[in-house]
Amino acid sequence: MAETIRYGFIGLGERGYWLIRDVILEYSDMEISAVCDLHQERIDRCVEMIREKGRKTPFVSTDYHEILVRDDVDAVVIVTGWEKHVPLVLEAMRAGKPVACEVGGAYSVQDCWDLVHMYEETRTPVFFLENCCYGRLELMALRMVRDGLFGTVVHCEGGYRHDIRNEIVRDGWEKGHYRLRNYMDRNLENYPTHEIGPIAKILDINRGNRFLSLTSTASGSFGLNEFAAKEYGDSHPLAKFRFAQGDVVTTVLKCAFGQTVSITLDTSLPRWYSRGFCVQGTRGILSEDRNAVLIESGEIPYERNNLNRYYEKYDHPIWKRFSEQGVKGGHGGMDGLEFCAVTEAIRTGAPAPVDVYDMAVWAAISPLSEQSIAQGGAPVSVPDFTSGRWMNREAAPDWAYSLDFKG
Amino acid sequence: MAETIRYGFIGLGERGYWLIRDVILEYSDMEISAVCDLHQERIDRCVEMIREKGRKTPFVSTDYHEILVRDDVDAVVIVTGWEKHVPLVLEAMRAGKPVACEVGGAYSVQDCWDLVHMYEETRTPVFFLENCCYGRLELMALRMVRDGLFGTVVHCEGGYRHDIRNEIVRDGWEKGHYRLRNYMDRNLENYPTHEIGPIAKILDINRGNRFLSLTSTASGSFGLNEFAAKEYGDSHPLAKFRFAQGDVVTTVLKCAFGQTVSITLDTSLPRWYSRGFCVQGTRGILSEDRNAVLIESGEIPYERNNLNRYYEKYDHPIWKRFSEQGVKGGHGGMDGLEFCAVTEAIRTGAPAPVDVYDMAVWAAISPLSEQSIAQGGAPVSVPDFTSGRWMNREAAPDWAYSLDFKG
Repeated sequence: MAETIRYGFIGLGERGYWLIRDVILEYSDMEISAVCDLHQERIDRCVEMIREKGRKTPFVSTDYHEILVRDDVDAVVIVTGWEKHVPLVLEAMRAGKPVACEVGGAYSVQDCWDLVHMYEETRTPVFFLENCCYGRLELMALRMVRDGLFGTVVHCEGGYRHDIRNEIVRDGWEKGHYRLRNYMDRNLENYPTHEIGPIAKILDINRGNRFLSLTSTASGSFGLNEFAAKEYGDSHPLAKFRFAQGDVVTTVLKCAFGQTVSITLDTSLPRWYSRGFCVQGTRGILSEDRNAVLIESGEIPYERNNLNRYYEKYDHPIWKRFSEQGVKGGHGGMDGLEFCAVTEAIRTGAPAPVDVYDMAVWAAISPLSEQSIAQGGAPVSVPDFTSGRWMNREAAPDWAYSLDFKG
Repeated sequence: MAETIRYGFIGLGERGYWLIRDVILEYSDMEISAVCDLHQERIDRCVEMIREKGRKTPFVSTDYHEILVRDDVDAVVIVTGWEKHVPLVLEAMRAGKPVACEVGGAYSVQDCWDLVHMYEETRTPVFFLENCCYGRLELMALRMVRDGLFGTVVHCEGGYRHDIRNEIVRDGWEKGHYRLRNYMDRNLENYPTHEIGPIAKILDINRGNRFLSLTSTASGSFGLNEFAAKEYGDSHPLAKFRFAQGDVVTTVLKCAFGQTVSITLDTSLPRWYSRGFCVQGTRGILSEDRNAVLIESGEIPYERNNLNRYYEKYDHPIWKRFSEQGVKGGHGGMDGLEFCAVTEAIRTGAPAPVDVYDMAVWAAISPLSEQSIAQGGAPVSVPDFTSGRWMNREAAPDWAYSLDFKG
């Protein structure tokens, strides 16, 4: 395939716009050949930005079908509301277009099976855009795990612990952003992939290991009412609406080899941002919140705030090169690395770094947690979307090492 | 009752010895009038230490019955292995001796009911020695919660995250410390009261709120084998013994008013000490691991390591006075405050700061977590040991405020 990969974007909300502006157009080997949104004003804003950046004007449409049939689109990127992710990925696969899809949980386990079955029928590459897999801390942890520094990994923690009250209710009562809809009507781990993605890579999920079961427990909903009352006044409907979504959802997963994983959704209370990332093994521990690593018999003093000294020693090679060449692309560079990896895989035909089986099992955590919560925290089984092949699939290729930056 | 409270100690292992040396004998209004242990050498060591400190030689016995009948014992302190806690507290209550008991989980829910029923029959005061209730951070958090700074509390976290591999296996295969026995044979949250104690105080458990249910998930057991192999060699029995106890146990509790609590047992992997204490409400958050507080619209910059500035403003009054008068008594002063509170309550007849209902429900978390783990993480109900009185019992008296130090 050609050196330059031409992307067609479906969904030009804030995330889509930023991905184009801050990531795709920062790289000379990525191009926007088509954009699509239901709202013409979003299309106009996006095209204007692309022109201002001095790049070729893309084909535009409000009908995504027109994107899927174009020869000048090498791959499509789905950046819509959560509900459209699975249907659009299925359509793209059916159309034979390699498809990269933004993250979010699924709505049903069946949707996840449909993804896997469509992939196995069409073999159209699917890329799940879990950018935290490319976080500098997460990749250092992965490297240290692969190098055996933590011994046998026993327990991991993570979460999406991010005060997004403003984002959830910003559109107010009438318009209804997809997050607002979901918080109003559903109670679950609605955004599991930060940080289950990087943790699944560390634990070799789908490649020698798998998630067996989970339990999920939701707190009551207090944060959004109080926030809406403060922002819009006590009489605003959202100040009194009985949100289904609990403020804090704790989900605990068990793996085939006895490892446990705890992930936390925590998005509607005031707090600092944290992915709560923690890896514990028989020889060491790494913690985002402590900003620290401890390696048994290690020489770097620990307790707190010694991470920088570990970066000096164990920074992932891809991050070393990335830092030398100049970090580019949103979220501190994670998005840039992610699209470099996707672009390279499309160009070379290499396996997807985060593939359809990853997408299926990570996204399935949402409906599974919904089921568990609905049953008072009962354990629910996690399907094996590989149908047994996880036992023989090779350990995740060290995709991150081979990445090349075109600048 | 007299100004000086005379304690009879049952159990003179390390914890008992330290409590006497570093806590009781540091205070002029506390005295050791009797000591008891099954091992004469422990008694001898203890008596020698008491004499060296210039204090009166206590009555000694290897039979605890002799302690319970003595007129010069105002209260007994149980510092034995976990298995003896409940039987000895029951006997002390029956003998009419106020009884303070070290922490640990119970072995059965019925044992916890027995404690409550014996108390209701005899009205003998019971003090549960959860020293973390007197931690400086925990008391600041309690004060801030009571002052409304966090708004409605929604979620709390805590744990006993302490690398005690050496303590668990130090006696080797033959002797069998009580911790070793338990780690060999049982799989559960075996030490829940750090940090469920301070969290229960914050959430008004048994006094307007209660724990409804919990789920518990244990990782596999990897840490102790590897540790024993490293310490004693690969052929040592403990290097290969299949420990029942998982390295990391995650327990999630749900409260009557929708709050959730996550506690973690994490004692057999290398790590820094942390009680993982975290309180989240609709207006703020406090985190031990971040060493930080964030109060919405607060004026103290947050993110990390701003705790000292909060201590300046919100240090609990008891800790202010304690710091001024000179912190005394093990574990950074927590043990000292704890015994000041117990001593004062015995002297004045005030309600126990941590009473039999607290003890029952905190200690019951152990057998309940064992049941949940045995059932694959199934939710189990937490009994209401107050038989409905939690709805009407007054909010916890601000015992900590009234404490007096005799020096």
